[in-house]
Parts: sequence; C-alpha cells; structure tokens
Amino acid sequence: MRWLRYEADGREHYGIIEGNEVVDVTGDPFAGYEMTRIKRKLNNVKFLVPVVPKTFYAAGLNYAEHVTEMAKKRGEEPQLPPNADIGYRANNALIAHGENIVIPKDAGELVQYEAELVAVIGTKCKHLSERDALSAVLGWTIGNDMSERTWQRNDRTLWRAKNTDTFKPMGPWIETDFDLDKAETIVRVNDEVTDRFHTNNMLHGVAKFISRMSQYLTLYPGDVVWMGTEGAPRNLKHGDMCEIEITGIGILRNPVVRAGA
Amino acid sequence: MRWLRYEADGREHYGIIEGNEVVDVTGDPFAGYEMTRIKRKLNNVKFLVPVVPKTFYAAGLNYAEHVTEMAKKRGEEPQLPPNADIGYRANNALIAHGENIVIPKDAGELVQYEAELVAVIGTKCKHLSERDALSAVLGWTIGNDMSERTWQRNDRTLWRAKNTDTFKPMGPWIETDFDLDKAETIVRVNDEVTDRFHTNNMLHGVAKFISRMSQYLTLYPGDVVWMGTEGAPRNLKHGDMCEIEITGIGILRNPVVRAGA
Repeated sequence: MRWLRYEADGREHYGIIEGNEVVDVTGDPFAGYEMTRIKRKLNNVKFLVPVVPKTFYAAGLNYAEHVTEMAKKRGEEPQLPPNADIGYRANNALIAHGENIVIPKDAGELVQYEAELVAVIGTKCKHLSERDALSAVLGWTIGNDMSERTWQRNDRTLWRAKNTDTFKPMGPWIETDFDLDKAETIVRVNDEVTDRFHTNNMLHGVAKFISRMSQYLTLYPGDVVWMGTEGAPRNLKHGDMCEIEITGIGILRNPVVRAGA
Repeated sequence: MRWLRYEADGREHYGIIEGNEVVDVTGDPFAGYEMTRIKRKLNNVKFLVPVVPKTFYAAGLNYAEHVTEMAKKRGEEPQLPPNADIGYRANNALIAHGENIVIPKDAGELVQYEAELVAVIGTKCKHLSERDALSAVLGWTIGNDMSERTWQRNDRTLWRAKNTDTFKPMGPWIETDFDLDKAETIVRVNDEVTDRFHTNNMLHGVAKFISRMSQYLTLYPGDVVWMGTEGAPRNLKHGDMCEIEITGIGILRNPVVRAGA
C-alpha cells in the first residue's frame, strides 16, 4: 500500500495510491482512517513530505564504503562506527518530491546528495527487542541527506551543512509493502546513473538501530529514521536534476538551483 | 504576560496566568487567541511543556566558564566556540515542570543538570539582522539540559547522553515580559544553591544566534532555542529535587529518580 500526503483544494490530505490516482481518506495512516469516494489524478495534486516527524532521526555513517571514501577525501583514517548511535536532522529542511533544492549563495562547490532509505515509525513504542523492532515500522520512503562538505568539516555542528532549508528532500510516499533484502538504491543526476548499491548493505541494520534507540527513547508515530548512504556522492550544481530510486518504493526527484544564480 | 500550557478536563489548553489562577483561551499564543471566562486554580491543573517545537535548537557550549570547566574535567585544552553554530535536541526527551527526571538503570553516576534560558520563537521568519532578531521571540522559558557525561564522551552522537526520555525538562511557562540583562540563573539541589550566574553572560548572545540561524534556516512559531549553561554542574541522584530559577521567569522544578531504584 502506498500512502501519499498531498495538497488539494487548499488543504492537506492523506490518500492511498491506486494506479495513477489517489483515493482520499479521512484521518491518517497513524491514528486510523476511512476511505472516501474522492479520487484524484496524481498529476493534479501537490505532493507533500509524507510526514513531519515529532523527532527526525538519522543514522549518519552506516555503510562501509561511504565511511572509507569520505575519510580518504579528508586525508583521515576511516573509523567504522562501533555502535548504532543515532543522530538527528531538522524539520525546517524538509521538502517534498518535486520541490527545488536551493543551494545558498555563499555555499561552496562541494554540495552533495546522499541517497537514504527512511523507516517511518507507525506505533508508540519503547524497549523493543531486535526481533520485534520492525513491527514498529509503518512503511518506507526515500530521503536525500543533502550536505555542504566545507561547512560539515569546519562548523562545530551539522546545522547548516545538513539542515539548511530544502536540504532534506523526503518522499515521494510511504510504501508499506517492501522487501528490504531485494532493494537497490540507484542515484541519477541528469539521467546518468552515478551510484548504485544494495540498500540493505548497512553496517548496523534497521532493526538494530530501532531496538537500540528504543532502550532509551520512546518512538512516536510519524518519527522517521534515515539509514545513511553508501559510496562517495558527487557534487550537484545549479540546473541539475537529482533522482533517487529505491526499487520497490519509487523515485524521489528534485531539481537543484543556486540562490541568486 | 505568562502563557501556561496545561491539561484539564482531559484535554490540552493554553491559558494566561493571573495570580494563582489560569484563564483559559481559545486558540494559542502563536496563531491567535481569545480569552474565555473559564478560570482554574494553578494547583488544580497539570502543567505541560509550554510548546512541542517543530525544531528543537540548542546552543550547547555558550558560556566561557562552562567550556573551561568541562574541558578541564576531560583533561583537554578549552576551546571557545568561535561562531554561533547551533545544535539540536530531541522532542521525545521533553517533560514538564513537576515531572520526574528518570535516570536509566545502566547510566553512570555523572548525570548532571544544565540550567538554560530558552527563547520561544513566535513568528515564521528568515534572514533577520541581529538588530531585528529578538522581534521573532514570543517569550522565554527555562530548560534543564540533563546530560550523562560518560555517554557524552564515548558515544558517536549525543543521542542518549542528552536525549534519553525525560532528560529535557522545560517550563514552567512562557514569560513574554522579561529583562534579560537583569536576569540571574540560580540552581538549587535539595534547597541548596549549587550554581548562580548572570543569565546573559553568553559567549554569543540570543540575537546573534537567531540572526545567524535565520540566514540558512526558516524559524517557525513554537521553535525553541536553548541558550547553554555556565559553570560546572553537579551530579544528580535518585531522590534529589532539582530546581532552576531564572529571575523574572520563574522556577522549573523536577524530582530525580533512577529506574529500578
């Protein structure tokens, strides 16, 4: 099942995708819903981020080649994270499928995508075992953890390197039926494939992260957990189109512009 | 004016404090409100956190003596942060005035309060000058940035060191009339004064932080910015009562318990 959050007739809705249409529901996928008879063409609605989380979690470094490649670029020894220590991103930076990624005027040239699987939490929960952890997940979507590397290296925190407005595209929808073991993540910039990796090739898996987080943190419906990226992403510049596909979920596509360009 | 968020008759309200009573309003302090005739004794309502922010910002290191003292404890050279680089905390950890701070079973002994001024954003804004920055602030409250120092030193992120459930007491209310230059922050543990400092003795002031943040980030009504703490906070243990006063705002009081004790 595919859950779309969208704007139509001047207000926000949740709906379920059927082919090229979305069927409006009352309520939402978290608290409960009922189908209506209102159907709209996907082309006629404005996509919104699938959810605005209460807390926005991100694994950060979670694929071996990414850790190694990024360390190499900084001239450092790579250190694989020994534990599933979760990090954070900020809601101000979220944008939907189709919206512009806006690079600030004063950003450097090293502005890069990071293609990430996103787990969307469906139930309030705490103290989950690894075996039960995935039962807390309502479904899956795609995130682009846009990063300005000069700021990432020199600022004391990741605030503008990772959380500048528009730097967190998420969508296009939430897919509830998803085979993580079969999934591939594919990045295309201007239709050229620039990255391709097995989505589940993580250092610490989704169940391990959620279980460990839930020993200390209550997870809430709508929280999102971004799972990190693989490889060495490339730079994006004004005029590029960045597309992240995770097979079995869909495609998250965002144009890139530079402010004042 | 003092804005209280509270629970009564099984639902959440905003109200305005008048003496020992709170006058219920329709709406809220951010989107607009109207007074009602319903008054309740403060003793008869359950205090809630003054707001659940869209994004929860925290300055972290922002007072010279705190930076120096914490570095000394780690046997490191103190490094004052050169820029107003903002950090983040997590909504799951928020609790209200009067609620228990629960130290997890497996936490160490170095579990410490941090007394912080909190600016509550009132208006959606971006690209504010330092001169205009404080116009975005609706009012002020108090935060206790509870920290487990062993986890803070050894984990890759601050997730459980700072964001364990109950580790972010905030309240008791939002005060809109506040003279920051005159304010003192006073911490009492079991009625003994353990810290006292001039609240505005910051390395980077509130206006500087908000202005810098707003060059890259849209601030939203209800966002909170925690401004950091001074000095070398002490450990808290099961049975302690931790009280943070900021003169002109009020007192944030929370009992401390250890899980399973």
